Amino acid sequence: MSQSKLSKLLEDEGLGTSETEISNLVRGVAAAPDGFGRDAWLTLLDPPPSPKLRSELETLKKTFELGFEITVDSLLKISQIRDALRELNLDGIMVPRTDEYQGEYVSARAQRVAWLTGFTGSAGTAIVLKEKALIFVDGRYTLQAREQVDQTLFEIVELAKISVNDWIQQNLSPNTRLGYDPQLHTRSAVQSLAKACSQSNSSIVPIMPHPIDSAWLDQPPPPLSPVMPHNLEFSGQSLKEKCAQCGSQISMAGADAAVLTLTDSICWLLNIRGADVEFTPVSLGFAILHKDSSAELFIDKRKLTGEARRHLGNSVTIREPDQFFGALQELGTSGKKIQVDPLTTSEWVFQSLGNDNCIVEMGDPCIVTKAVKNSVELDGARAAHLRDGVAVTTFLHWMSQNAEHGNISEIDAATRLEDFRSIGENFRGLSFPTISGTGPNGAIVHYRVDPDSNRVLSPEDLYLVDSGAQYLDGTTDVTRTIAVGKPTDEMRDRFTRVLKGHIAIATTRFPVGTNGGQLDSLARLSLWEVGLDFQHGTGHGVGSFLSVHEGPQRISKAQGGALLRPGMIVSNEPGYYKSGSYGIRIENLLTVVSTIPQEGMAGSFLEFETLTLAPIDQTLIVKNMLDDGEKQWVNIYHALVYQKLARLLEPEVRDWLKKVTLPI
Amino acid sequence: MSQSKLSKLLEDEGLGTSETEISNLVRGVAAAPDGFGRDAWLTLLDPPPSPKLRSELETLKKTFELGFEITVDSLLKISQIRDALRELNLDGIMVPRTDEYQGEYVSARAQRVAWLTGFTGSAGTAIVLKEKALIFVDGRYTLQAREQVDQTLFEIVELAKISVNDWIQQNLSPNTRLGYDPQLHTRSAVQSLAKACSQSNSSIVPIMPHPIDSAWLDQPPPPLSPVMPHNLEFSGQSLKEKCAQCGSQISMAGADAAVLTLTDSICWLLNIRGADVEFTPVSLGFAILHKDSSAELFIDKRKLTGEARRHLGNSVTIREPDQFFGALQELGTSGKKIQVDPLTTSEWVFQSLGNDNCIVEMGDPCIVTKAVKNSVELDGARAAHLRDGVAVTTFLHWMSQNAEHGNISEIDAATRLEDFRSIGENFRGLSFPTISGTGPNGAIVHYRVDPDSNRVLSPEDLYLVDSGAQYLDGTTDVTRTIAVGKPTDEMRDRFTRVLKGHIAIATTRFPVGTNGGQLDSLARLSLWEVGLDFQHGTGHGVGSFLSVHEGPQRISKAQGGALLRPGMIVSNEPGYYKSGSYGIRIENLLTVVSTIPQEGMAGSFLEFETLTLAPIDQTLIVKNMLDDGEKQWVNIYHALVYQKLARLLEPEVRDWLKKVTLPI
Repeated sequence: MSQSKLSKLLEDEGLGTSETEISNLVRGVAAAPDGFGRDAWLTLLDPPPSPKLRSELETLKKTFELGFEITVDSLLKISQIRDALRELNLDGIMVPRTDEYQGEYVSARAQRVAWLTGFTGSAGTAIVLKEKALIFVDGRYTLQAREQVDQTLFEIVELAKISVNDWIQQNLSPNTRLGYDPQLHTRSAVQSLAKACSQSNSSIVPIMPHPIDSAWLDQPPPPLSPVMPHNLEFSGQSLKEKCAQCGSQISMAGADAAVLTLTDSICWLLNIRGADVEFTPVSLGFAILHKDSSAELFIDKRKLTGEARRHLGNSVTIREPDQFFGALQELGTSGKKIQVDPLTTSEWVFQSLGNDNCIVEMGDPCIVTKAVKNSVELDGARAAHLRDGVAVTTFLHWMSQNAEHGNISEIDAATRLEDFRSIGENFRGLSFPTISGTGPNGAIVHYRVDPDSNRVLSPEDLYLVDSGAQYLDGTTDVTRTIAVGKPTDEMRDRFTRVLKGHIAIATTRFPVGTNGGQLDSLARLSLWEVGLDFQHGTGHGVGSFLSVHEGPQRISKAQGGALLRPGMIVSNEPGYYKSGSYGIRIENLLTVVSTIPQEGMAGSFLEFETLTLAPIDQTLIVKNMLDDGEKQWVNIYHALVYQKLARLLEPEVRDWLKKVTLPI
Repeated sequence: MSQSKLSKLLEDEGLGTSETEISNLVRGVAAAPDGFGRDAWLTLLDPPPSPKLRSELETLKKTFELGFEITVDSLLKISQIRDALRELNLDGIMVPRTDEYQGEYVSARAQRVAWLTGFTGSAGTAIVLKEKALIFVDGRYTLQAREQVDQTLFEIVELAKISVNDWIQQNLSPNTRLGYDPQLHTRSAVQSLAKACSQSNSSIVPIMPHPIDSAWLDQPPPPLSPVMPHNLEFSGQSLKEKCAQCGSQISMAGADAAVLTLTDSICWLLNIRGADVEFTPVSLGFAILHKDSSAELFIDKRKLTGEARRHLGNSVTIREPDQFFGALQELGTSGKKIQVDPLTTSEWVFQSLGNDNCIVEMGDPCIVTKAVKNSVELDGARAAHLRDGVAVTTFLHWMSQNAEHGNISEIDAATRLEDFRSIGENFRGLSFPTISGTGPNGAIVHYRVDPDSNRVLSPEDLYLVDSGAQYLDGTTDVTRTIAVGKPTDEMRDRFTRVLKGHIAIATTRFPVGTNGGQLDSLARLSLWEVGLDFQHGTGHGVGSFLSVHEGPQRISKAQGGALLRPGMIVSNEPGYYKSGSYGIRIENLLTVVSTIPQEGMAGSFLEFETLTLAPIDQTLIVKNMLDDGEKQWVNIYHALVYQKLARLLEPEVRDWLKKVTLPI
């Protein structure tokens, strides 16, 4: 349906006065994904739309959910971009797949790489030069890129072979003026890019808006989803308290104010949620927090319902996004010290502040406080995990009854699991796309099933399902691996080694002052012993009805991450992948708790409490590979799973759970 | 003896023509510590000195070895420095205890902190401001600083409470112009200092020479010790090959030349050794290595004997130290790219290069290659460890016969151990000051015995001895803890936990691509289990007749260090310290070796070979706390120690070793 036709329909329904105004509103609403608020997006339209308009809007929404209508004519697009470069006196342009918020999920508007190249994977960077264009993708996307991208126009470069900056350093012609949009790159990324360019005697040039935004006529607008207050019963701390706490941290850092650009920080701080992107219930916007605890929120006011305005109250000043630049300029010349995080904040923010002398380069002041969950959030997480455990256990029972018969596909399984979850109280959607992989697909770490890859589960398979949900009271993430039929000895050996790694993390005690990087090898030792390993981190932080991947803590080979503190939630997910055959992963979420002081202890220690409640497939465990402590952990964990879930399960499921959690 | 009197004596002996020339030579020779070359320093004097002159020189040398003649009149000195600051239009000056080479040990000339404050500890920083002066020291030196420093003039600040830069950030008056000598701070240190100053609206100002150098009339000259070729039978690779190898790394990094300022890198690269500082057999100097493998060595030519000149040959151009600045300036304007390491190279080098655009900031190109020992160096290390094992085992036997009788002090023990070592072939001195601590002194991690602290070993003690030697074929470092009499149950429990940590490191297998930081926690798990830990790293790299503390690899909580590679040598030294009671540490050196590929292994794996050969006190082991694998390790290790050392030991010692290495 054409835009003008839609506008006409809207005007007929009394949904606004100016055509542009209406059409912008409706397109913005349509650009927000479905999900967290369910039909909440419709509440932004007043009066509510007729069934006819609603159906039209849903069609438009569907279009945006697919990213946008991809009509790839890369040849035309590249020549448009090259024309623009010539006018701008540039020799090339960076095309990143990031937006101005640097979050994990981006809106359709930010899909510049896809618009240009046709490549729709979730990570990738393109560079358009005068004589050449390239797209850099990582290992999981090499095949997809080859299918989607016209290789006569774009050279596909594998990131495993060379990084973008190394490529630039080694291949850029001298004196290249390489453009980049400072809104789409963090300061630290720009510094690395500048260094790579200078090594090839070239330079980077900021250019805004991105040339693609000018060439892309039907670029989706920024998404408009309603801002929803996140109530005290879930957040456990008022926005005033949070602003005061983070304000005093700004003060302690020697700054007067902090610029916040991470949307999950802002939503956490102000106790609001939104549905502007998929899987992470955030509203896109920027904020400035002052040391006196006053805050400014730069957000499209059309997203604010009356309830949201009342919730934000007087301590938060609402300003339009286009006022953000002026506010930064004013801050930069105020003589105040401004805290900004170079790792997560766009170069544009730094440039807008104007004056590097006013900048205190430091992490976002919300990050650590957000990661340390308060008791209400932890109780919420435990409650959410009960519901999630019921859903996952019910699913595993259903699988035990049906998987072997050869008529369940990976998509069937994922759908069924989502169905079981969606009936849970406070359920608001998935926290990431379910990884549902059987046999060889299970060995693909970031596997996302689609109709082409979809396999039917067969009795010789291991089936791996990694999934999670967003509940108002908590975010979940759990992986179980089950034997569809009778597993081989090798599968059982590998599963038991992965389990030993999982138990080593779950049971370790460690001193205050330890980071996750120091614990990572415990999850791998048993695999290393026989010359095996897994090629991903052991654990990531998890938000509270926020991002399922949250910093600053993690358990990983790569650097250490932040110190582990009581109240932090982190995943414990060692795995093993035999390419072309099967994948194994066992994932529970843990929370860090203080060790009860005992005589003789020198200093304060920490340990983990497991939050996730779902049985581990005992048919895959080789008992005599476990030592006494490990067997005890399995038995205590299974007793806990049964004790917590039994009364919440259907009788049939409960009986099954009783059986599969018997002590080994 | 006065300088002119000494000069007269020298002239009488025909040791030169100009008085200044002679006196400078002799003072420089005297400023080099004794040690690696033994009396080699005398070879720089031609003709050899008469007994009378030699005795005078030894007296002068002794003076310099004490640092210098400390006649602390801090009040006068501070006022001199403040006068100088006024003239220089500065408000303050940094006084670091580092020299222009940033090595672990510095010559007497660099003891500016001691000259100014009287504090002679091995680490500390002073700041002189207009109204205030401070000295920053770490926990091990707080008491010593209070004794040595006039606290009416200097505030003593504990580094555990606040870092130097944090102090500056929080306390410096606005608009302070803080001077620093760019030769004495690395680039990265200067950047941190500049940031701290800018946070307090102040600025740093480079000033050379350091105002103390002008005020310090009897400042010792740079040390002059003879440069000794390090022969191929020990180095295993010619300097030409090394220059070619590192030159090609410079080329791969996109640079044309590298500036080398780490003396152990330079000595390794050119296969030379010296005795300019204590414990590390280096000659102080700078070098530039070009990608075509030609090298320039900036060194005081008086240190070069004919043999050294022949060894360096045509591929190394010898230039005087005062030509270094001009060479850097020339490089900086040559259009070439210059590789410099901001973490280890002085700011002065960067400033002398003039132009940051020419700089490729990267680690010293020798560091990794130096750390990966070749087969000749590894054979040398094994041979040195045989000799060292004989000395340590002979010492431990001697202790077993004598320690309990209550007439052996910590100094006696250290002296005896040095005596046993000094008779070994290729012995050239200690690799660091022996830590010989009994009872509560053993609990002080960096304990260095002096006549005041010296304790007599008593039967309720644990005695800890951490020591090492420099042999022409290798550098050693070993710690053993022994029960002087009958140990308590607690001591045995703790010792066994430390041993379990030691064994966990010694036996682990890990994939290529692993760094030491990933293994560190394995050394601690058994202590963590009962709420204990140790407050130092688990392991450091070790040089080959070079620094006993060598990068870039380490096993440590703090960051990861470089990837472990076959041929690297690293220490394995977990410990446990009960303050006021006892200390335990078990340290062996390990070398990284490739795991022999076996079927089913995915990828290449590494493991450790233990180099150190000395018995571990079995009376301190609680057998039933070890699992089967751990007992097996103890028995195999002890069998190896006996097998390797037996034929080299005195019969009495051999019989004793047989007994104390019986299987448990």
